[in-house]
Amino acid sequence: MNISEKLGFKHIEWTDDHLVVLDQRKLPLSKEYFHIGSIDDAIFAIKNLVVRGAPLIGITAAYALCLVENQENRDSFFATCEALKSVRPTAVNLSWAVNRMINAYETHVGDDNPARILLDEAAKIHREDSKMCEEIGLHGNDIIPDECRILTHCNAGALATGGIGTALGVIYTAFFSGKTIEVWINETRPVLQGARLTAWELARAGVPHTLISDNASGKLMSENRINLVIVGADRVAKNLDFANKIGTYNLAVLANYHNIPFYCAAPTSTFDHNCPDGGSIEIEKRDADEIRKIFGAQISNPTTPAYNPAFDVTPGNLLTGIITENGIITP
Amino acid sequence: MNISEKLGFKHIEWTDDHLVVLDQRKLPLSKEYFHIGSIDDAIFAIKNLVVRGAPLIGITAAYALCLVENQENRDSFFATCEALKSVRPTAVNLSWAVNRMINAYETHVGDDNPARILLDEAAKIHREDSKMCEEIGLHGNDIIPDECRILTHCNAGALATGGIGTALGVIYTAFFSGKTIEVWINETRPVLQGARLTAWELARAGVPHTLISDNASGKLMSENRINLVIVGADRVAKNLDFANKIGTYNLAVLANYHNIPFYCAAPTSTFDHNCPDGGSIEIEKRDADEIRKIFGAQISNPTTPAYNPAFDVTPGNLLTGIITENGIITP
Repeated sequence: MNISEKLGFKHIEWTDDHLVVLDQRKLPLSKEYFHIGSIDDAIFAIKNLVVRGAPLIGITAAYALCLVENQENRDSFFATCEALKSVRPTAVNLSWAVNRMINAYETHVGDDNPARILLDEAAKIHREDSKMCEEIGLHGNDIIPDECRILTHCNAGALATGGIGTALGVIYTAFFSGKTIEVWINETRPVLQGARLTAWELARAGVPHTLISDNASGKLMSENRINLVIVGADRVAKNLDFANKIGTYNLAVLANYHNIPFYCAAPTSTFDHNCPDGGSIEIEKRDADEIRKIFGAQISNPTTPAYNPAFDVTPGNLLTGIITENGIITP
Repeated sequence: MNISEKLGFKHIEWTDDHLVVLDQRKLPLSKEYFHIGSIDDAIFAIKNLVVRGAPLIGITAAYALCLVENQENRDSFFATCEALKSVRPTAVNLSWAVNRMINAYETHVGDDNPARILLDEAAKIHREDSKMCEEIGLHGNDIIPDECRILTHCNAGALATGGIGTALGVIYTAFFSGKTIEVWINETRPVLQGARLTAWELARAGVPHTLISDNASGKLMSENRINLVIVGADRVAKNLDFANKIGTYNLAVLANYHNIPFYCAAPTSTFDHNCPDGGSIEIEKRDADEIRKIFGAQISNPTTPAYNPAFDVTPGNLLTGIITENGIITP
């Protein structure tokens, strides 16, 4: 049984004429599937975090382009591509996947219907992502000691990719190779991907884990209870600065202060070769109600001003290394 | 109109034969008062965060001891004192205030009823705390520049004291002296005192403020959008290590990394002269459901293991200074 089978869930699948995804807004309390039958459905799903995680957003966008009506209308298809790219600005995998679909589209001949070529390319992107996760897991396993207490942030797991995950892919590979792994999970306010998604995934895989408020990470580091930090990425610049979920930078500074190795795991589809450094990465600002409300419960006055950047930028010099499918890059 | 009047609310008041406190569990959405008519009521209120904040816990405990039945029974009175001290272990103001009440009790003569002497002492502790807040505000104002963007954590405001607050007392004093102040408020998971209490207080006072997730603090510092950090304290050790709300240590490390002044504001009642350093401070662990649930909403699986320390310890060497009623102490 491979690692993917051990996780025991499917969260993205093309079926006949539409895309079915696990609705990540409903986890962990309810396991519901969301059916994407049109570009508008896909835009809704990406914008509202039905699917999230840089690689999974890319795969979803690729399949979504198989749902464009009148695909043979070149102008309309390209306009849809641009609209899709702009739904979430920070994760570069979205435009990377759309650009791959555009390149595939360009190879179709004259008046032929491009449907088959598009679906083949989307499935290929999906397959390749799954394979990249496995390779990231294997490379990453090299830096995990036999006994390791690992802190992770947000969800860079299967749920964020088309495979076993990036940061969690490393953790799964180490765990199923027989190492003694304990994971501390930052709950990851405001959207709580750690509490909702990472805890759910790790429980299914049987990996020992403990949930903490993001505020407890420093205390744990100061008490030598964290041996290594590993996170995912939404965009990696040429100088290895990278954008990831808000709070990643705090962890990088804390890990640096405590001399704890700090790794990012990301497939090369997350690298933006047009982006020289972190200052060039557009950071998505999301609705202030993500701060003022939690699961529908109003936690502050509805009129309290709130600021809600979804990502921050960690400078490459705070990284111990980036784990890719091709090996580990050190700054 | 003094600052306290400008804040425009009462949150702790002795009335005839019992204590009335603002129920801080219900803020900001509802302003309800909680009546403490017995020691059991007081223990419930302190344990369940009806009242919180180190100085306010002390004042509440002092008034609570006026509610002991058969006060003239010395053994029973002292047993109650010990029970009260143990309700929350970290804030030293609790045992400090109870010890003051014990000393007052000792001064009553023979068979006299100690009621009057106890109530006088509790009211004196309350009055002195209010005065200390004002003096902390005045000393703290010296280190606030004319234009200042300040980050604070948790609630070290009026709601945490018997006066205008400690960290927020400094902010109010600077603001009402005419300085241009903007406050960034860390929401302060798990119990969200920043989102619920600090935002409520600052809005009433008219101090410009913006709420953020705790995870956004590093990003703001890296963008030079924070000029100064100021927090309260629950216990200050002899070497100036201090315990405060979980996440304070993260901010101290981040402020240090970014060369941002980092202050703690605390009355001398928060100093524990029996405590040599931070390692000797007992850190309260609270119910893991504070992590797994928010406002009653289940955010993770109910069975997810969670770790919930309520405080962390910041070493004195990360402090720029501690603002007390007697002036500013530098490490």
